[in-house]
Amino acid sequence: MNDALQATLAPALKSWIESANDPASDFPIQNLPFGVFSDAVNPQPRAGVAIGDWIVDLAALERAGLVDAHGAFDKPRLNDFIALGREKWREVRIALSGLLAHGNATLRDDETLRRRALVPRPDATMHLPVEIPGYTDFYSSKEHATNVGSMFRDPKNALLPNWSEMPIGYNGRASSVVVSGTPVRRPNGQIKLPDQDRPVYGACRKLDIELETGFIIGRGNALGEPIACEDAEAHIFGMVLLNDWSARDIQQWEYVPLGPFNSKGFATTISPWIVTLDALEPFRTATPVQEPQPLAYLRHAGDHAFEIELEVLLRAEGARQPASISRTNFKLMYWSMAQQLAHHTVGGCNTRVGDLMGSGTISGSTPQSCGSLLESTWNGRRPLKLEEGVERVFLQDGDEITLRGWCQGDGYRVGFGACAGQILAARG
Amino acid sequence: MNDALQATLAPALKSWIESANDPASDFPIQNLPFGVFSDAVNPQPRAGVAIGDWIVDLAALERAGLVDAHGAFDKPRLNDFIALGREKWREVRIALSGLLAHGNATLRDDETLRRRALVPRPDATMHLPVEIPGYTDFYSSKEHATNVGSMFRDPKNALLPNWSEMPIGYNGRASSVVVSGTPVRRPNGQIKLPDQDRPVYGACRKLDIELETGFIIGRGNALGEPIACEDAEAHIFGMVLLNDWSARDIQQWEYVPLGPFNSKGFATTISPWIVTLDALEPFRTATPVQEPQPLAYLRHAGDHAFEIELEVLLRAEGARQPASISRTNFKLMYWSMAQQLAHHTVGGCNTRVGDLMGSGTISGSTPQSCGSLLESTWNGRRPLKLEEGVERVFLQDGDEITLRGWCQGDGYRVGFGACAGQILAARG
Repeated sequence: MNDALQATLAPALKSWIESANDPASDFPIQNLPFGVFSDAVNPQPRAGVAIGDWIVDLAALERAGLVDAHGAFDKPRLNDFIALGREKWREVRIALSGLLAHGNATLRDDETLRRRALVPRPDATMHLPVEIPGYTDFYSSKEHATNVGSMFRDPKNALLPNWSEMPIGYNGRASSVVVSGTPVRRPNGQIKLPDQDRPVYGACRKLDIELETGFIIGRGNALGEPIACEDAEAHIFGMVLLNDWSARDIQQWEYVPLGPFNSKGFATTISPWIVTLDALEPFRTATPVQEPQPLAYLRHAGDHAFEIELEVLLRAEGARQPASISRTNFKLMYWSMAQQLAHHTVGGCNTRVGDLMGSGTISGSTPQSCGSLLESTWNGRRPLKLEEGVERVFLQDGDEITLRGWCQGDGYRVGFGACAGQILAARG
Repeated sequence: MNDALQATLAPALKSWIESANDPASDFPIQNLPFGVFSDAVNPQPRAGVAIGDWIVDLAALERAGLVDAHGAFDKPRLNDFIALGREKWREVRIALSGLLAHGNATLRDDETLRRRALVPRPDATMHLPVEIPGYTDFYSSKEHATNVGSMFRDPKNALLPNWSEMPIGYNGRASSVVVSGTPVRRPNGQIKLPDQDRPVYGACRKLDIELETGFIIGRGNALGEPIACEDAEAHIFGMVLLNDWSARDIQQWEYVPLGPFNSKGFATTISPWIVTLDALEPFRTATPVQEPQPLAYLRHAGDHAFEIELEVLLRAEGARQPASISRTNFKLMYWSMAQQLAHHTVGGCNTRVGDLMGSGTISGSTPQSCGSLLESTWNGRRPLKLEEGVERVFLQDGDEITLRGWCQGDGYRVGFGACAGQILAARG
């Protein structure tokens, strides 16, 4: 990481956009996450960067000659920009950090350009930031895998033998990945009730969430050419929050032997802002000790976890306030993103720019730190009390879930914004 | 189906292209499958239709004003053409059938146009015909599921209870779907040997095939809006042959609980020509009796199976001739394509033009009709004799597998061409 890039991460850095200096803002000048937005003035989706309560319109900045991405910012998805490569991402980051820094007059004092290039965030509609050619979901929280194994298999041998040897993952459905704010319709499907011989068709009765992060591939690999674990982070553009909505009753009946299918394929929500790996650099920390030591292709020296605080909020239908139902941290994950990507490609599988890789449900070791209702209510046996007279085991129609994530810096935080969705009633 | 379309299917129809009238040709005038090709004269991939030993260059025909697809034929994938809808596919089919029919002079007698619009098939390079936004693989052969269940679980209860209630499927990896002729590199990965406590990293020792067909989505559905079983065939553009290469040793160690991942993600081969559902219409036949009767959302009146003869050929490294190692028929499949698509979308999952849906391994009830080496050699216990002194249990480096498929008409056959791939040694 060169000096210019390092300088964009300095905790002392401030912006002339005052809202970015609020210690509670997700989007200080140290963050500069990329997304795709539109607004009433210009309904054409285009690339932007969040800063405080504003969005910098990158297409407008490029037209003004202040950044250069060969026109890739004036597109409805970030893939073309991302495909320009890490040097370009860094060049743009450094340029934006300069333009937005306290004391820089170029954009601040050019009222015409400022009106064109700064859009109030509340006025914008956010879109899916990337076209997602492939979506893979891992299963890399030891606490989550242990909880699920205890519930559905054997509490004494909760972790299957393969779990400690590789980042277990499966292919998800990319078509139904939606951006935060998209309503989620409760799925219909086959449900097998314990007291009946045959399944019934009907609306899911055990609608759940999965608190996850996801990473976006910034540089793909060719078919047959694995990505080495040591090189894997250079292939990652950035991270998002991810809610892998899950229909537990449909899942239980369908998943043996080929894995979850309709129980997950109806919707997966991601947050609209992609926080770059560069912005997360100051929050890098040690991965948990791995015992047994992984096979050689899964080893990497140094620190490969990231300290990201995570929270799940549930606003029950009709409630005024959301209730916080979980708090945990991404650094607890047993397998790193680099290990996930090395494993995904070890057999030669190719990845492409924009591919989404989910972490798997992120759970801590207490009911208050579980990343799914399945775990925090222990499959419905321990209702969660949200407020006086309001309890939940699984989600009800009208309920709204919001995931939050942030890295706590000294006097600022690098946040992800909201990853939210409200439940609609099933189709009649 | 209107009269003009019906007329394109008449068994008596002949073409002025003589090789199309050979009863052994896969590509008579009744077929007219769509693909993407390039050649030395024009290295730009574009849409074509196979007829006998020739390819009709659709982009050239459109430039000559003989067909109209709003420029969609001059693209490296068929998605834009397919997205024009079923009326357009049929209009083009009827126009081509007319132009190629015995007695029609328009193209036959225009030497300049004929030179531009007809390319010898042996001179062409075939490309992946569609961009595949999503790849799903089903598991719909009762014989295959029974064989696998007998081998790995309990021969007395080989079929799991959910199998008879729904077309079990899972999400595959779309990025590694390749066109026939692409070499397939033996994957490395984690293998757990029975006499060792921990897995080893190494080259797959049980490399296998899966004989499948696949269908290509011609009209998608919006998120949250299921496709009814009765309407499902109208969403299908056509079919291909599909080889779902499988690393059985990697699969056995990784697949519980989330399904196959690296054991399948290294390559899936499809045939380059998409045979339209219209061309398959004369070969429609009854689906097997389904007992128990499926839930209402999986019911459809009429015939929804298709009589497609299937064959697997294995040319061992160094052998002069390929050996036929399996013969079976697509009509044996328990779940229809319509039922697969209705099930896939019942919870609201959206599909997109170009999505690929694999049938699952197609096996009959004898060792000679199995769609995988796993089954025909009973997990390596019964070697297949290919020729004097040459046996196989699983694939060796240099072996070439070719899938063949055809519908036998009266004096002609509607064929799929080859779906082939040769095994390369694993990376060192």
